[in-house]
Amino acid sequence: MSTTRAIYPGSFDPVTNGHLDVIQRASSLFDELIVGISVNIEKNPMFTLDERLEMLTESCRPFDNVVVDSFDGMLVRYAETRNCKAIVKGLRAISDFEFEFVMALMNRKMDPSIETVFMMTSAEYSYISSSIVKEVAGLGGDIEGLVPSIVMEYLGKRLTER
Amino acid sequence: MSTTRAIYPGSFDPVTNGHLDVIQRASSLFDELIVGISVNIEKNPMFTLDERLEMLTESCRPFDNVVVDSFDGMLVRYAETRNCKAIVKGLRAISDFEFEFVMALMNRKMDPSIETVFMMTSAEYSYISSSIVKEVAGLGGDIEGLVPSIVMEYLGKRLTER
Amino acid sequence: MSTTRAIYPGSFDPVTNGHLDVIQRASSLFDELIVGISVNIEKNPMFTLDERLEMLTESCRPFDNVVVDSFDGMLVRYAETRNCKAIVKGLRAISDFEFEFVMALMNRKMDPSIETVFMMTSAEYSYISSSIVKEVAGLGGDIEGLVPSIVMEYLGKRLTER
Amino acid sequence: MSTTRAIYPGSFDPVTNGHLDVIQRASSLFDELIVGISVNIEKNPMFTLDERLEMLTESCRPFDNVVVDSFDGMLVRYAETRNCKAIVKGLRAISDFEFEFVMALMNRKMDPSIETVFMMTSAEYSYISSSIVKEVAGLGGDIEGLVPSIVMEYLGKRLTER
Amino acid sequence: MSTTRAIYPGSFDPVTNGHLDVIQRASSLFDELIVGISVNIEKNPMFTLDERLEMLTESCRPFDNVVVDSFDGMLVRYAETRNCKAIVKGLRAISDFEFEFVMALMNRKMDPSIETVFMMTSAEYSYISSSIVKEVAGLGGDIEGLVPSIVMEYLGKRLTER
Amino acid sequence: MSTTRAIYPGSFDPVTNGHLDVIQRASSLFDELIVGISVNIEKNPMFTLDERLEMLTESCRPFDNVVVDSFDGMLVRYAETRNCKAIVKGLRAISDFEFEFVMALMNRKMDPSIETVFMMTSAEYSYISSSIVKEVAGLGGDIEGLVPSIVMEYLGKRLTER
Repeated sequence: MSTTRAIYPGSFDPVTNGHLDVIQRASSLFDELIVGISVNIEKNPMFTLDERLEMLTESCRPFDNVVVDSFDGMLVRYAETRNCKAIVKGLRAISDFEFEFVMALMNRKMDPSIETVFMMTSAEYSYISSSIVKEVAGLGGDIEGLVPSIVMEYLGKRLTER
Repeated sequence: MSTTRAIYPGSFDPVTNGHLDVIQRASSLFDELIVGISVNIEKNPMFTLDERLEMLTESCRPFDNVVVDSFDGMLVRYAETRNCKAIVKGLRAISDFEFEFVMALMNRKMDPSIETVFMMTSAEYSYISSSIVKEVAGLGGDIEGLVPSIVMEYLGKRLTER
Repeated sequence: MSTTRAIYPGSFDPVTNGHLDVIQRASSLFDELIVGISVNIEKNPMFTLDERLEMLTESCRPFDNVVVDSFDGMLVRYAETRNCKAIVKGLRAISDFEFEFVMALMNRKMDPSIETVFMMTSAEYSYISSSIVKEVAGLGGDIEGLVPSIVMEYLGKRLTER
Repeated sequence: MSTTRAIYPGSFDPVTNGHLDVIQRASSLFDELIVGISVNIEKNPMFTLDERLEMLTESCRPFDNVVVDSFDGMLVRYAETRNCKAIVKGLRAISDFEFEFVMALMNRKMDPSIETVFMMTSAEYSYISSSIVKEVAGLGGDIEGLVPSIVMEYLGKRLTER
Repeated sequence: MSTTRAIYPGSFDPVTNGHLDVIQRASSLFDELIVGISVNIEKNPMFTLDERLEMLTESCRPFDNVVVDSFDGMLVRYAETRNCKAIVKGLRAISDFEFEFVMALMNRKMDPSIETVFMMTSAEYSYISSSIVKEVAGLGGDIEGLVPSIVMEYLGKRLTER
Repeated sequence: MSTTRAIYPGSFDPVTNGHLDVIQRASSLFDELIVGISVNIEKNPMFTLDERLEMLTESCRPFDNVVVDSFDGMLVRYAETRNCKAIVKGLRAISDFEFEFVMALMNRKMDPSIETVFMMTSAEYSYISSSIVKEVAGLGGDIEGLVPSIVMEYLGKRLTER
């Protein structure tokens, strides 16, 4: 019985409670879970890579078998380097599904030995995304309960800097 | 590091190459995979439970860590009895997704500790389902490549009996 | 400023907490809300019309401006008779939406003066429907929190009668 | 430059103005169009095959290059017999699309030389289907403008026979 | 019986006949309807806020209970200030629905007492949006029937200015 | 029996094997097929119009009845000039469908005599688009089998120029 390692990739700009919900679920299914920040996805991130790493690391502290990392270039190449057997994706809605479906087929072509598995976000987090959190916070809306407390601090600081 | 057991439920009336594609993928991710025939789903099955068990068992022979079984009643109750941590579902299309999404939310309410994970069928099997295979075979169409050879035999016999 | 009366139609076989969620939301928007049991929709109902009326009436007691009724024939004709300006529909998912969209266009053709308005069920009820409740209860699953207490009684009685 | 013949299959129980809209569009694109009644699709048709043939033939009279026929068994086999290069399908909505997509992939497997082409029904007919027309007529609703006049006669007769 | 006020928000850059269709429908259901131009949504509007206010005000003149206004910041905060009980959204297609669903869930979290109600645009306007109107007009296409006459004037002027 | 000419429009930046699959299918259905590069669609193309014309012309050499061209302005106006009876669109997924549906309705309004027909890309090409090919190539991924060989050359050159 070999170790099964999975990767949960994203830009995490910033990490939300929806992401953490998926991280918790995935960490209970796989022996090890890498939460991997892709530096390619977000063109103009609100937070630097270091800030995103810090927010994620702090938020993932409760999970023993979760490691936070970042990668450049293609996801499947990084997954191969780290011996991941699975890519984890959280599904919130049908539009997610369509896009992820195409990406998963492309990733499968790139490396057929790595499976993409989809897990459902909890219904209460279904409307949360990094971009809507940033939009609401930017308009002065209350984001308590949508992001971890360390992200609330960082968002508060970033928005007052403007 | 504990053993992770998963269940792939269905009526498998009969098993198709699309099912086997999911079984192969899931068996590479989990330590053990139970392929579980639900006796509740299909109201008027073409094949008896014994026939379906035999076709599945024969078709799953290549996979070391796959066990074929059947269950009555609720899926989550059976999954609990067998200590499964995950329910595996194959996604072919968006309409699948909608239905499975609702079932997964209901199953999560019934037992929050069991996760539903969705895996993608290979694109070449995306149009194959048990019911379309039966319909095509019933109209005299060629189903070579859509089902395992043992199912071709059983389907041939069943259709000439009529 | 005239009174705006709306109708929320369905088979309510039986009423669920998802239905009550829509009833509460709609009753806060319109001056009067008729909850109308259509006797045409459900071919083989589990509960008689009288039972469904009793369960609905009991469940809607908290809402002052809600009236429970039943109707035969076309929804728009009944809505005209009762001077309703709006038909209320609860949306849980995209598949609901597609079907309801078609029905709403047909109803609009039948009487362009009656509007269909869609309201969203609360996310926590998004997976609840009368049919899934009956299926789960029939398999011995726990439906606490999915239906009003009077429906739990009726369902319990009906299932032990079998 | 060879003749391009296409087939527009369906149960046409009965033909609607939405079907005729597709027939008109397709007949302008292809040299010949066969409107083919499949005797397999509709389990309990309201109209006999002869009645459906008569209603279709009458309704298609304005189109010079349209032929009405019926077929038993698999659509692609019939299409091969008639030397059709294309199967025409009318799309009204996304749910249509999903189902037709699967059927088209299966048909492509059965005979890769026959293409399925999708055409859009006019927006004003997007909510019309044979089954909704029968349901509305059965409830006493007005179906003027939804079906050809010959179908209104047949539907009137059928409903008073009950 | 209290007054029910609703808000129909948008960027209205420019208002189309599809918007006016929704405004007419919503104004018949609610005692008062505020048509609210959000100054946050459109990053690079073709028309200034003043121009959009003028086009909307002129186009809404036929509706007695409709008021045109603009707002900055979060929609729900503005809706609270104006004592609106409902947010009105026009649905044209499924992709609309998905996006609006997420926004409605977020708005419900921000203020659970304000309901989002969805109304269907007339089928004949289902393909009209501000952006497609601008694109077609920019390419020299005819937009008669897609926008009110005052918008045709403004668009004509704007395009010749370039 | 008149000649039926169709147009398959796109930005083709660059042409993929998915495009060629549609071109092959469409060229077997219509007497003549124009593959038309729209110079309006892609704001910041990776390849110049001349490069795109060259790649397309080279890739379409095997098809006798296919002509490559480019056009400025509205698609329907160009289609009228070239006496096209049909606009061909390749469908890969539901999200394609929604967008194309709206465009097709708009095009129908602009010229009701030109039909849009949708054809299905082969399942094996369902995940290929110009943008995903550029993204994968840009990250150093292998795109063999996704694009014609001439496009592999051009992409290789372009990427090393950076």
